[in-house]
Amino acid sequence: MGPIRLSEVARLVGGRVVGDAAVEVSGVAGLREAGPGEISFLARKDYAPLLASTRAAAVIVGRDAPACATPVVVVDDPDAAFSRVVERFTPAPDPLSPGVHPSASVDPSAVLGAGVSVGPCAVVEGGARVGDRTVLRAGSYVGRGARIGSDGMLHPGARLLDGVEAGDRVTVGAGTVVGCDGFGFLSGGPGGLPRRVPQSGTVVLGDDVDLGACVTVARARFGKTVLGRGVKVDCLVQIAHNVRIGDGTIVVSQAGIAGSARVGRGVIMAAQSGVAGHVEVGDGAVLAGRAGATRDVAPGEVVSGFPAGPHADWRRREVLLRRLPALLERLRKAGAPRRKAGAAGGKPKAARRRGGRKA
Amino acid sequence: MGPIRLSEVARLVGGRVVGDAAVEVSGVAGLREAGPGEISFLARKDYAPLLASTRAAAVIVGRDAPACATPVVVVDDPDAAFSRVVERFTPAPDPLSPGVHPSASVDPSAVLGAGVSVGPCAVVEGGARVGDRTVLRAGSYVGRGARIGSDGMLHPGARLLDGVEAGDRVTVGAGTVVGCDGFGFLSGGPGGLPRRVPQSGTVVLGDDVDLGACVTVARARFGKTVLGRGVKVDCLVQIAHNVRIGDGTIVVSQAGIAGSARVGRGVIMAAQSGVAGHVEVGDGAVLAGRAGATRDVAPGEVVSGFPAGPHADWRRREVLLRRLPALLERLRKAGAPRRKAGAAGGKPKAARRRGGRKA
Amino acid sequence: MGPIRLSEVARLVGGRVVGDAAVEVSGVAGLREAGPGEISFLARKDYAPLLASTRAAAVIVGRDAPACATPVVVVDDPDAAFSRVVERFTPAPDPLSPGVHPSASVDPSAVLGAGVSVGPCAVVEGGARVGDRTVLRAGSYVGRGARIGSDGMLHPGARLLDGVEAGDRVTVGAGTVVGCDGFGFLSGGPGGLPRRVPQSGTVVLGDDVDLGACVTVARARFGKTVLGRGVKVDCLVQIAHNVRIGDGTIVVSQAGIAGSARVGRGVIMAAQSGVAGHVEVGDGAVLAGRAGATRDVAPGEVVSGFPAGPHADWRRREVLLRRLPALLERLRKAGAPRRKAGAAGGKPKAARRRGGRKA
Repeated sequence: MGPIRLSEVARLVGGRVVGDAAVEVSGVAGLREAGPGEISFLARKDYAPLLASTRAAAVIVGRDAPACATPVVVVDDPDAAFSRVVERFTPAPDPLSPGVHPSASVDPSAVLGAGVSVGPCAVVEGGARVGDRTVLRAGSYVGRGARIGSDGMLHPGARLLDGVEAGDRVTVGAGTVVGCDGFGFLSGGPGGLPRRVPQSGTVVLGDDVDLGACVTVARARFGKTVLGRGVKVDCLVQIAHNVRIGDGTIVVSQAGIAGSARVGRGVIMAAQSGVAGHVEVGDGAVLAGRAGATRDVAPGEVVSGFPAGPHADWRRREVLLRRLPALLERLRKAGAPRRKAGAAGGKPKAARRRGGRKA
Repeated sequence: MGPIRLSEVARLVGGRVVGDAAVEVSGVAGLREAGPGEISFLARKDYAPLLASTRAAAVIVGRDAPACATPVVVVDDPDAAFSRVVERFTPAPDPLSPGVHPSASVDPSAVLGAGVSVGPCAVVEGGARVGDRTVLRAGSYVGRGARIGSDGMLHPGARLLDGVEAGDRVTVGAGTVVGCDGFGFLSGGPGGLPRRVPQSGTVVLGDDVDLGACVTVARARFGKTVLGRGVKVDCLVQIAHNVRIGDGTIVVSQAGIAGSARVGRGVIMAAQSGVAGHVEVGDGAVLAGRAGATRDVAPGEVVSGFPAGPHADWRRREVLLRRLPALLERLRKAGAPRRKAGAAGGKPKAARRRGGRKA
Repeated sequence: MGPIRLSEVARLVGGRVVGDAAVEVSGVAGLREAGPGEISFLARKDYAPLLASTRAAAVIVGRDAPACATPVVVVDDPDAAFSRVVERFTPAPDPLSPGVHPSASVDPSAVLGAGVSVGPCAVVEGGARVGDRTVLRAGSYVGRGARIGSDGMLHPGARLLDGVEAGDRVTVGAGTVVGCDGFGFLSGGPGGLPRRVPQSGTVVLGDDVDLGACVTVARARFGKTVLGRGVKVDCLVQIAHNVRIGDGTIVVSQAGIAGSARVGRGVIMAAQSGVAGHVEVGDGAVLAGRAGATRDVAPGEVVSGFPAGPHADWRRREVLLRRLPALLERLRKAGAPRRKAGAAGGKPKAARRRGGRKA
């Protein structure tokens, strides 16, 4: 964890030093926050001006970075390279010791794999199965008959409700709920109030799924709500009953996917976007921030706005709307004299009069 | 739970078989997912094409469904009928045994009704009351002096905070919080920072209220935040302090209702919609997805957009906006020659001059 | 807690009675809900009509309030004054007794200050520090090496994850998570799926920070996510990794702030608003409800819409859009006859012809 020479950093990330390779760095920070002895990185062009003002001892930059006085390490991917350096300077947290904390509650009929760690006040219900080396942090929960594979992580207060199935290397964020009831109601309940549609399905999380904090994933009305392999979900996202999400799709914070929607593989749903019920989003499609897909989205398509349409159209419309007041003003002005001219368009009459006079 | 004849299904749902009534079905699935031996249903016209391709052994359909090779059971309400069949094939979960789990914490001054089940690490604080047969799942919470009626369900990690009152047959989703402080601040706190407005009111949930997961319902600043009988709320919904919601209203995921707003009976708030502070939404009104009501909404009115307006106007506007670029282009084109013609409109003067010359 | 004379109320809030100062009030309520013996307040002009119909025994009003039959107490700030009266009539809850509940779990290496109260099933992990008189309600959590100062409050199920630092007088709402992993992924993970960017930073909450329920605050990728002194956050808000928020800023429900955004001091982010990644919002700026800032916002600027622009422009645009259908109709109509007139604009030719004839 001690300080290292910039030449070592270059070796670590497979980069080339420009400037004093003997400079020593002992920590990491952003370009703005970095102080003497700290190394930073430049991954976004719009931050390039900070290169001149940063107090960092060194900076990891891409091949296209502007020259600067500060020593730099040039690499192909500054973002990935910096992550390696961050890890170099980050003390690994003490591993959580395997075993069941005395305040935890594990039902005798539950099955725990080898090296499982069950934290304080965590609960594993009857018939549940937890794979090898999976960590259940404090207050996390594995419901009746629920399963999670090996090398998983339930953060504090993460909950897999009854019967939910999660694969290997699955991470569930703090306060997140997987397997809540789908939101389905039929009319004609007691007193003319809506009555619940029974939700007897479950949720299946593929291997390497990663859920953020306070996410809600509803169980299927029947059958399964499915998140494919490597699906990554940010915080406060809603995934409704019977939704199916393809492998490697990314869903950013506060986005929502309504019931029975089908989102493809490698899709990106940006923050606060939404997909309406029963809508299909094709593989590799992108929903921009706030985009709301009320109709199917073609594979690879990039959509924006609500209701969502092609991003390019949306941008054109936005530009147009900004110019609209001036535009209509001009059209009105152009119109006004014409309206007078239209009155003067009575001229033909005058002409007739003149003609009359002539006659 | 074994397989049953389609004729039995017809009896179960009060429908009429078209095709082979002797076909046996042993499970339920969607039209896409169904395999041999499974029964499905058709509740949406746009799924009708799947009737031709489904591998289901039988399908429950409405009276207006197209003919198909697969045996069908014809009913008035395929959705409701299918729910009955789902229940027929769904093994009821083992009932949770009444009693208090050894890892739970129930204050001696709390009162539990007959047949109450308190799960692992659930907490019931002093002076709380829990009605007969109500189930408190693992890690759920009933705060000091809080009350919940009979036949209720607190899912894992559901929390009724101090003093909150819930009626009979109330369901609260996992991770949901009822009775958090309202968000009110006055200026002029210490160091010129905002200071909290004391929130000394409570929350009252009527009979048959059903809240999803990670919902937040704030206590009133004074008096009560009230959810009427049979109000159904989806996941990640915010209901602010002093809000009043009428009986049977449905609030879909990620919607929000701001402080002191009054939402009527039988209202539907679609996903990601919102109601601003102090706004009144009339009985039976509908807020479409993403609608944001910044002014009162009349009873029965259907509103869309932000700020929300009549749905019909919003649709017209959307169509118009899609056509706007072309439209303005045409107007500009039409305008250009007219501007020349306007110059040529000087001609009349010339004519007068000519006329002048004539005189 | 007994009833008091209106004259006493006036003394309590530094106001002046108009009407019968001997009237006794024994409770507080809104103008609509108030009954005999209750005192209410008028803080919004649009509620003034309720003065005539309220059954309240007395009302606290501002200097500009209309005259009414009900006795009133006139003050400068009815909102603040009423809060004092609410407190007068609200029995303080019994203090939570200091000490650690037997069902709680406090690691031997954790350090608890004087008078700390640790509720049922609350968890304090190794190396954590809790300041004097701080209250950890049932099921709340202080992670490994995390710190919270004195006179703080973790509501039930509030969670400070490993290493998070909170100042003095910090309140964290039920179900809220501080220190979840930032949402960062790099391409080229196993099987072509995205792989996590290690998130080794932390979160720092300044003194007097107040977080609502089910809020998520992500730890920095490196360094710190920072909420300044007196920052107030409502429910269901997302604050992403490496965000920095200045002192006294207010963030209303369901708003979101994306990674590395910088929000200034005294900013107001209204409900369901958002700030995009790396965007800077200047001191004292206001984001209206639903506003989405995709570019920097100047200090003191008020922005609306998505993408957010000056509020005044947005209002103009909204008015214009409402009138657009009629407007374009008029332009089209105006255009049509003009096009005929344009044909008739051939008249000059005709004139020339006539002139020709004349020649």
